[in-house]
Amino acid sequence: MAHEPGAIGIFDSGVGGLTVFREVAHRLPHESIIYLGDTARVPYGTKSPETVIRYAQSCARLLLQREVKLLVVACNTASAFALESLWDTLDVPVIGVIEPGARAALRRTESGRIGIIGTQGTVTSGAYEDILRQLMPEAVVHSRPCPLFVPLAEEGWVEGDVPLAIARSYLHDLLECAIDTLVLGCTHYPLLKRTIGQVAGPGISLVDSAEETADVVKETIAHLGMQSPEAEGRHTFLVTDAPESFGRVARHFLGRELHEVEWVDV
Amino acid sequence: MAHEPGAIGIFDSGVGGLTVFREVAHRLPHESIIYLGDTARVPYGTKSPETVIRYAQSCARLLLQREVKLLVVACNTASAFALESLWDTLDVPVIGVIEPGARAALRRTESGRIGIIGTQGTVTSGAYEDILRQLMPEAVVHSRPCPLFVPLAEEGWVEGDVPLAIARSYLHDLLECAIDTLVLGCTHYPLLKRTIGQVAGPGISLVDSAEETADVVKETIAHLGMQSPEAEGRHTFLVTDAPESFGRVARHFLGRELHEVEWVDV
Repeated sequence: MAHEPGAIGIFDSGVGGLTVFREVAHRLPHESIIYLGDTARVPYGTKSPETVIRYAQSCARLLLQREVKLLVVACNTASAFALESLWDTLDVPVIGVIEPGARAALRRTESGRIGIIGTQGTVTSGAYEDILRQLMPEAVVHSRPCPLFVPLAEEGWVEGDVPLAIARSYLHDLLECAIDTLVLGCTHYPLLKRTIGQVAGPGISLVDSAEETADVVKETIAHLGMQSPEAEGRHTFLVTDAPESFGRVARHFLGRELHEVEWVDV
Repeated sequence: MAHEPGAIGIFDSGVGGLTVFREVAHRLPHESIIYLGDTARVPYGTKSPETVIRYAQSCARLLLQREVKLLVVACNTASAFALESLWDTLDVPVIGVIEPGARAALRRTESGRIGIIGTQGTVTSGAYEDILRQLMPEAVVHSRPCPLFVPLAEEGWVEGDVPLAIARSYLHDLLECAIDTLVLGCTHYPLLKRTIGQVAGPGISLVDSAEETADVVKETIAHLGMQSPEAEGRHTFLVTDAPESFGRVARHFLGRELHEVEWVDV
C-alpha cells in the first residue's frame, strides 16, 4: 500500500465527488490528494442516516490509514448525515460540502428565497435548511429531490431534450416559489449546470458547492499552516468496486479517463 | 426472529423483485413467501461480478437461516453473475430470472431477432446471449443497457413525455435491428411496459421475466412435491436498509404500500 503522508483525503459514494476533487486540485496544485469512491455501496442518496454514517466512517478510516491530514466529505448526503459523527471521532479537520454551499447561497441571494436540489437523503435531512435558518432566520427555503440527475450525469447525458424535460419537471415548483438562488446540493449536479441554468433562467444564481468547498479547503490549509512542501502534488484514486468503470465515467467529470484506479476493500 | 419453515425465499437488490413476488404470490396463494430487498447495497446493476456474487451469497445465507425451501433470485444482475455460485454452495433449488426470460423469448420469436434490455451489469455479462445462443444458435441478439429505467420506475414516473423520450432514445438502435421480441431484462422494467410497448410498437412482443419466472417456480414446486399444506400463505418483507421508504415505493409495484417491513442486518 503506497502511503502519501500529508495528502488531502476526499471521499464520496462514487464519482460525483470528482467535481470537488477537480476544484481542489485546481486551487492547490502542490497538494497530494487521495480520492476514495465507495462504488461498492453507491449511491448514498437513497439510504438511511444510520447506514450512511456507517459507510462514511469506514471511508474515513481507510483514508486515515493512509495518513491524510485533512478530510473532505465530497458528498452532500454523507455531509448531511455523517459530519457530526466524523467530527466526534476523527482528529483531523473534516470539511463537508453543505456549509460552504449554504454560505455561498446567503452571499448571493437578495430576496432571501433560496432553492435546494439534492438527493432524497439530503433533502429529507433538512441539513441545508438548518444551516440557512441559523445564519439567516428570515430565509425562505424550498427544496426538491431530483433522483434522475445522478444517473443522467453518470451516463454523460447532460444536454438535449431529455435532461431538459426532466429538469423542467423537477424545477417547476421551485421556480413558482420565486427563488433567486439555487443550490446544486449534490456533487453530481454541476455536470448538468447548463441544462439547469437554462431552465432556471438568468434571474437565478446557481451555487456549485464543489467550488465553494474547494475555497474552504484552501483557506483551512492556509490558516492551519498545513501547506505541502512538494513542488507538485500526486493524485491517487481508490474505489471499493469496479475500477475500470469508475475510470471511464470519470471522463464526464474530469474531461479525461482515469487509467490508474486502485481497488480497495472497506 | 419469526421462522416460516418451508417458505419460498425471493431476493433482489431492492424493490424491483417485487414484480416477481407479485406473480409468484398470484400463482401460489397457499405458499408463504419471504422477500428480501438488499436496500443497503442497491443497486447491483452497476457493480462488479465479484461484488454482486458476495452480496447475493449473503442474501441467500440470510434466507436459508429462515429455512426457505426454494430460492428465487429476482434480480437479473444477480442471476447473471451469481447463479452458478449459488448452485454450487446451496442445497435448495435456486431459480434465476434469466433462463425463464430467454426461453420465453425463444417461444415467441419468429424471426430469431431478439432484443435484450437490462442494467449495465446484465448486458455486459452476456448472460442472455449465452443461453439464447445455446438453445438457438442462429438467434441474432442485440442488447442495450437502460440505466435510467430503474430510477424512473422507483419514482413511479412511468408514463408521459419524459419516460417516452428516454425509451425512444434507448430503444432506437434496437428497433433499427428489426427485432420481433424484446426481453425486459431487469425486474424494474415491467413497470414501464406500457411506455416501452408504445415505443416498440405492436410488431414486437415484450417478454416480462417476472411472469415467466413465476411459472417456473410454480412448475418446480409441483415437480418436487414441495407444495405447502397451508390454506393461505404468509408474506414477509425484509430489507437491509430504510424499511419505510421500501414500503412506500412498493406501491408502484404492488398497488399498495407495505406497512410491515422488517429491517435485517446482512
